[in-house]
Amino acid sequence: MTTKVSVERVYNFSAGPAVLPVPVLQQISDEMLALPGVGSSILEISHRGKKFIEILESTRQRLKSLLNIPDNYHILFLQGGSRLQFSMVPMNLLRQSGKTASYILTGSWGKLAMAEAVREGSVKTLWDGKDSNYDRVPASLAAPDAASTAYVHYTSNETIQGVQFPGEPNVGSVPLVCDASSEFMYKPIDVSKYGMIYACAQKNAGAAGLTVVIIRDDLLPTNRDDLPGYLNYRNHAENDSCYNTPPTFAIYVLDLICKWLQDDIGGLSAMHEVNRGKAKLLYDVIDASNGFYKGHAQTDSRSLMNVTFKFANDQIEADFFKKAAQHDLTDLKGHRSVGGIRASIYNAMPVEGVSALAEFMKDFAAKNA
Amino acid sequence: MTTKVSVERVYNFSAGPAVLPVPVLQQISDEMLALPGVGSSILEISHRGKKFIEILESTRQRLKSLLNIPDNYHILFLQGGSRLQFSMVPMNLLRQSGKTASYILTGSWGKLAMAEAVREGSVKTLWDGKDSNYDRVPASLAAPDAASTAYVHYTSNETIQGVQFPGEPNVGSVPLVCDASSEFMYKPIDVSKYGMIYACAQKNAGAAGLTVVIIRDDLLPTNRDDLPGYLNYRNHAENDSCYNTPPTFAIYVLDLICKWLQDDIGGLSAMHEVNRGKAKLLYDVIDASNGFYKGHAQTDSRSLMNVTFKFANDQIEADFFKKAAQHDLTDLKGHRSVGGIRASIYNAMPVEGVSALAEFMKDFAAKNA
Repeated sequence: MTTKVSVERVYNFSAGPAVLPVPVLQQISDEMLALPGVGSSILEISHRGKKFIEILESTRQRLKSLLNIPDNYHILFLQGGSRLQFSMVPMNLLRQSGKTASYILTGSWGKLAMAEAVREGSVKTLWDGKDSNYDRVPASLAAPDAASTAYVHYTSNETIQGVQFPGEPNVGSVPLVCDASSEFMYKPIDVSKYGMIYACAQKNAGAAGLTVVIIRDDLLPTNRDDLPGYLNYRNHAENDSCYNTPPTFAIYVLDLICKWLQDDIGGLSAMHEVNRGKAKLLYDVIDASNGFYKGHAQTDSRSLMNVTFKFANDQIEADFFKKAAQHDLTDLKGHRSVGGIRASIYNAMPVEGVSALAEFMKDFAAKNA
Repeated sequence: MTTKVSVERVYNFSAGPAVLPVPVLQQISDEMLALPGVGSSILEISHRGKKFIEILESTRQRLKSLLNIPDNYHILFLQGGSRLQFSMVPMNLLRQSGKTASYILTGSWGKLAMAEAVREGSVKTLWDGKDSNYDRVPASLAAPDAASTAYVHYTSNETIQGVQFPGEPNVGSVPLVCDASSEFMYKPIDVSKYGMIYACAQKNAGAAGLTVVIIRDDLLPTNRDDLPGYLNYRNHAENDSCYNTPPTFAIYVLDLICKWLQDDIGGLSAMHEVNRGKAKLLYDVIDASNGFYKGHAQTDSRSLMNVTFKFANDQIEADFFKKAAQHDLTDLKGHRSVGGIRASIYNAMPVEGVSALAEFMKDFAAKNA
């Protein structure tokens, strides 16, 4: 086999797929031709074989431990991204319920989720941030009616706007459904507050093509012949996520990431501390720039995962991207729908990368302000 | 970085996920920390960035070239496996058509596909192999009524039974829909005979979590507000398979596999020759065993991908698996629904692996007959 040479890596601020921990990438590389003691690659082994079942169970146990997931929740490993969850949630939880689903809209993804729910049943907006151009989360909410509300859906971190809930909205006894795609595992949470959490993996949880669903057992649908087999949560729960062939490689990557969070980082409280520190580095530069950098989100709603800002003067944006790339700081363009700058600083973005960006921003401001 | 040592690999006859070409695994390993010239891993780069779009387009062009796909077909890279296609096909092509879908049943997967279609509209069986325990494909078919038939669906290779169509069934002008999951790219085909072909990747096309769909443009649905966004083929076609984040890593693996088929194998005609030779090695042992090995499929319907057989005497099966494993021949158990032995010898299984199994089988028969 070949000898690996040291490789040049950039600081990649992509919003997803996004930066992963180097030790995880190294282990994937080392084991790609054959898993130790198996003689085949993770890409080649049956999802019903002993080794993969071990990996699947390890991933489940690590998630359970990291997030302190209670026993009355199932952890499912699905495909189709959050987009498919936008439909699966209302197909499973709204259709045939005779109730209404309520959506909290704090940005682009929440709106897309709601647009899919409309196909499946009665839907209403519980709160909408459009009046201030989606720069904040609600300070308070009207209480949803427990008897007539199937669930309340919210997007805990809006990747495009860079707006994040500091804590769960209070919806009383109504099941709370959370799209946690772009913040999953960035800090400890109390899972018992949720009916369901879903997250695509390509931000904090690894490879595109895997979606993690954590669902309270009483929300699994029963006797639902209307649901296509793959789209019925119960089928996945009852078959330990092997209803059909799961995305085996992406599950293996998630297992390695959970191991990194446990062993190298020291758990989600420690991760949260690191994430707060990283975000502060960038927001401090923005706040001290005398308006040279204009942050999008209101201070109390700022995301620790996606730092979004613009220039007061639009003209210099292209120059910013060009000079940043010369410093190996890449993928800083805001989402095509809103423009501007977005620095995604997920769990695996090292402090050194964020510091390098903060220094670059200070320097760029000094030269261009 | 670490120095790789030579790794021990077994001959893994898994039905899927299944053996992959070693040069492909080696390249994945070599590039895992950073794609050349990019500075980030394939797992870390945005699906909307320049490098991934290049990989996506390369994969599409290689598939087009290998399979000689006409210009009036779209190639889509989806998630959810064939299981989700079992539902997406009738949701897109049957629902609201006012027509009936006809299914040809030659084994387990065809039956599962039909069971999902029943939820979506009017469905009938065009041919069913159950009278001979799914050991053959139809010698001839009743012509489906062109005016009232939405499509005819068949499973070109039944992985569990080891039954394969030597060529496409003739269904006149009715759109032919093929689940080609376990034979995709094993030989050249005339794509213009098909309305649609779909295949999950974890047999001949790489990593679990990717499903390739090749669909004739006139079959893309129009004005279908009833379809969930992710489940509408048109959304994927109009967004070049980036309607949402596609399974980027699995697409990269497929690109490498296509490159291997083109450059190392010499195309699908050459691959077909190799596959015929490999299958003959095993079927010859079965046929010369005086009934010690009993093949499941009738001779004309034998699969070149999955060689299925049993012992006349069931008692020695466990001993066969045990001794085979001692020769590094693994994953030979038949599907849990039918038992027996199944040797899956997809494109990437080297001739040496099949020869080793054939020799082992001869030796085992000599000692136990």
